[in-house]
Amino acid sequence: MSDVVTVEVGLGDRAYDILIGPKLIARGGELIQRRLPKARCAIVTDDNVAAVHIEPLVESLSAAGNAPAVIKLPAGEKTKSFDSLEKVVDDIIAARLERGDAVIALGGGVIGDLTGFAAGIVRRGMNFVQMPTSLLAQVDSSVGGKTGINSPRGKNLIGVFHQPKLVLADTSALDTLPAREFRAGYAEVAKYGLIDRPDFFAWLEKNWREVFAGGPARTEAIAQSCRAKADVVARDEFETGDRALLNLGHTFGHALEAATAYDGARLVHGEGVAIGMALAHRFSARLNLASPDDAARVEAHLRDVGLPWRMSDIPGSLPDAEALLGYIAQDKKVSRGALTFILTRGIGQSFIAKDVPASEVLSFLKENHPG
Amino acid sequence: MSDVVTVEVGLGDRAYDILIGPKLIARGGELIQRRLPKARCAIVTDDNVAAVHIEPLVESLSAAGNAPAVIKLPAGEKTKSFDSLEKVVDDIIAARLERGDAVIALGGGVIGDLTGFAAGIVRRGMNFVQMPTSLLAQVDSSVGGKTGINSPRGKNLIGVFHQPKLVLADTSALDTLPAREFRAGYAEVAKYGLIDRPDFFAWLEKNWREVFAGGPARTEAIAQSCRAKADVVARDEFETGDRALLNLGHTFGHALEAATAYDGARLVHGEGVAIGMALAHRFSARLNLASPDDAARVEAHLRDVGLPWRMSDIPGSLPDAEALLGYIAQDKKVSRGALTFILTRGIGQSFIAKDVPASEVLSFLKENHPG
Repeated sequence: MSDVVTVEVGLGDRAYDILIGPKLIARGGELIQRRLPKARCAIVTDDNVAAVHIEPLVESLSAAGNAPAVIKLPAGEKTKSFDSLEKVVDDIIAARLERGDAVIALGGGVIGDLTGFAAGIVRRGMNFVQMPTSLLAQVDSSVGGKTGINSPRGKNLIGVFHQPKLVLADTSALDTLPAREFRAGYAEVAKYGLIDRPDFFAWLEKNWREVFAGGPARTEAIAQSCRAKADVVARDEFETGDRALLNLGHTFGHALEAATAYDGARLVHGEGVAIGMALAHRFSARLNLASPDDAARVEAHLRDVGLPWRMSDIPGSLPDAEALLGYIAQDKKVSRGALTFILTRGIGQSFIAKDVPASEVLSFLKENHPG
Repeated sequence: MSDVVTVEVGLGDRAYDILIGPKLIARGGELIQRRLPKARCAIVTDDNVAAVHIEPLVESLSAAGNAPAVIKLPAGEKTKSFDSLEKVVDDIIAARLERGDAVIALGGGVIGDLTGFAAGIVRRGMNFVQMPTSLLAQVDSSVGGKTGINSPRGKNLIGVFHQPKLVLADTSALDTLPAREFRAGYAEVAKYGLIDRPDFFAWLEKNWREVFAGGPARTEAIAQSCRAKADVVARDEFETGDRALLNLGHTFGHALEAATAYDGARLVHGEGVAIGMALAHRFSARLNLASPDDAARVEAHLRDVGLPWRMSDIPGSLPDAEALLGYIAQDKKVSRGALTFILTRGIGQSFIAKDVPASEVLSFLKENHPG
């Protein structure tokens, strides 16, 4: 396992390990059995992921004497619904799994969030194992225990905190991702540098091509990202403070996702975050908090890797600035009517800004609006 | 407030108070504002409870400057469903409550369990206030943070642990309960004596008429019950050990509830627990763990207060002993195929017995089966 990196998430009696490296899915049976020796398993996955990855995982679990139940769902964001939750919960109960057994999420963020939620509520909390198969899921949703589904009134409004017992981030699984999806996940990798790790951002500026190509640089970038997120989460498991830093780029990003009706053909989450991060840096510069040079540096890096970085990069027309502000004000990070943003004093110097005046945001949106 | 007793539930940063006394619902606005000064509120209740109690609560909250949203559901066990959960969650989100706002459960166990679950999953956990209006809810479901709904495959299989911020147990609300419902709740009061408080059980044997009549003895019995449950919960918040003691009477009781298809006309939960406690003591005596005199004492007290205490007290016919054992084996307290029971060495000396042989249970059920 010399090519496998372990990141420990230090959460007291909820601590767990993230294993990062190639070909981990095919070793799932052995790695799960080592940590949860007697647990029976159910795998929750989607049709697309199952086509590529379910066979080696089922074989590996069966070889470890643990033939799993398999629960398959349609791929896509629509699966993060109450209906899917009810189905997964019902199937887990039907498989007669008990509290000490394990529910495995094999898939991207949608499957991870939904499955973690189901595992968190069946018998008031079952063992949960994550096998994220997208870059976004490996560096973001698989760390920190946030689980959930969407409400018709907003994304991720319903869920629980439920920490996994183990995360297996199989870096080879990313080889089969479409380039656009890998890039979108990379936006969250860059985010960790921009939050509080300027050296990591500088490293990415130099080494991003190797990260995209695979191999040790990819493993290293994922491990750094998981460490960065684990640090923040360990400080603030239930998001009452510092954890909000992880929302860098997300307030603008979510508004743009909502404004494009979550149409993945126009904008996927990581792309929204990329544009959101660029806007957060540019907005910070406009408020004289950060240097315009830092904003330019962020924009340049996002452009280099092929990510969108400004609103005009989104195909099709956007609602006007007032409407975008409306989406921001509905965002769940709004606390008691005041606008909360993650702003920055420079690369790797982000902070939580409460009471940002809506008028400033509106002016900024107008200046940067492509329409 | 000289007639109000406060019981503290010591759960570290999740600690909260239970206030027990007359006319507390009408003082809800003031009491909630004192603890959650800026919280806006939504009340979840059912049609029956609303008819009696919603007006004084809404008035009290409005007088405190906090006009609440009201979410009403049909009364009855069927409301503990995925459909109701989705409705309550959606209505809370529609009312635009944020994480720091409060969801109030005004009602019995069904409303409390459902509402607590909804409060636990909207925005991954909102403030939750319990106003239990049944004796059962005041002494049982309002302490300990267990929330949930039923699955078609079993009761309470889906839920979370979510502790309230405050519980207001209005003892006057119990004056309007049907006698049968009050008695059923009383079974859980007696349970706390039988678990580990022999003096409390002896006190109940002497004072149960005053508890039924209302006044200070009722408040005292509820406070003692809440203290007893709070002690167990503080030792084992997430039910990995000692908390199972609270299931005294519940393994047999749940089986009988299932065997009567949860038909409240035949058997309600507290009645099932009463018969279950009598059976647990009689079974313990049969296994030579406890004296038959103690079993007789339990049976006599349940009979005195008008509770059913043997299977033949259930109207209609029951499935045979093998079928009853089947219901027991499906109970969620079954761990890895072994039968776990709460047995006893005498009044107030209960303990968790793992690996109880199914054959012993079957023989015992056959001997005590009325059919």
